[in-house]
Amino acid sequence: MLTNELENLIDTNEPLITALSNATALLFHSIEQINWCGFYLFDDEKLVLGPFGGKPACTVIPMGKGVCGTAAVERRVIRVADVNEFPGHIACDPVSQSEIVCPIILSDGRLFGVLDIDAPIKTDLRTKMSNCYPRLLKFLEAK
Amino acid sequence: MLTNELENLIDTNEPLITALSNATALLFHSIEQINWCGFYLFDDEKLVLGPFGGKPACTVIPMGKGVCGTAAVERRVIRVADVNEFPGHIACDPVSQSEIVCPIILSDGRLFGVLDIDAPIKTDLRTKMSNCYPRLLKFLEAK
Repeated sequence: MLTNELENLIDTNEPLITALSNATALLFHSIEQINWCGFYLFDDEKLVLGPFGGKPACTVIPMGKGVCGTAAVERRVIRVADVNEFPGHIACDPVSQSEIVCPIILSDGRLFGVLDIDAPIKTDLRTKMSNCYPRLLKFLEAK
Repeated sequence: MLTNELENLIDTNEPLITALSNATALLFHSIEQINWCGFYLFDDEKLVLGPFGGKPACTVIPMGKGVCGTAAVERRVIRVADVNEFPGHIACDPVSQSEIVCPIILSDGRLFGVLDIDAPIKTDLRTKMSNCYPRLLKFLEAK
């Protein structure tokens, strides 16, 4: 159902900032038991904060740093069931207890950024991520 | 205090999307009794949704339509204590009962967009807007 809502909400004719802002609002209000959900965008050097739902967050994440920077460099989904056990974890919000970061790789190989979801409980966010990621990628490919 | 927090949070070296995203998150989580707070950006033709806090919102507002479009065209703050009494009000979220929209006019006269704050009660949002607007304008002037 979330995928359908994203399909209806996101229009590839819209500016990127509009679509990402509405997408994060939908995800943040639809996914239960999370406290942050949003994008970090790759600016060819580092990750910079993009639209998100939740409290104010770290604005810059160097490549290779924290869960987001590691997922971006290694180009793989990183799931952290307990952030306290991830070496170098960047604690933007001390409430966050678990996290999943999915790198967004466009079909031409370019890194667009990462989608980051945090929860205030120790949990497995893989299902939540897999429910929203394919539609987001489809939209970003069309931009 | 909110002005100081904005001062600390917003760095003019950051990308616009980063600063607007964090600014809306701070405002949304700092201002009591509101259900939506965010930007509509002027793209030289219409207003398009930018970063915001709250539930998904209307993506495009034509100039002159609704509270946002009227504030943008008339270049004045519009305060609506009861949205049901504003002719042509665009109801993105039926929960909203009052609204204030402040056009963001840069020093060279260009319309950047509008800052929109909605509350789920019939109230006067002028103090909340006046607490955050000057710092936002200062940042946007520096971009």
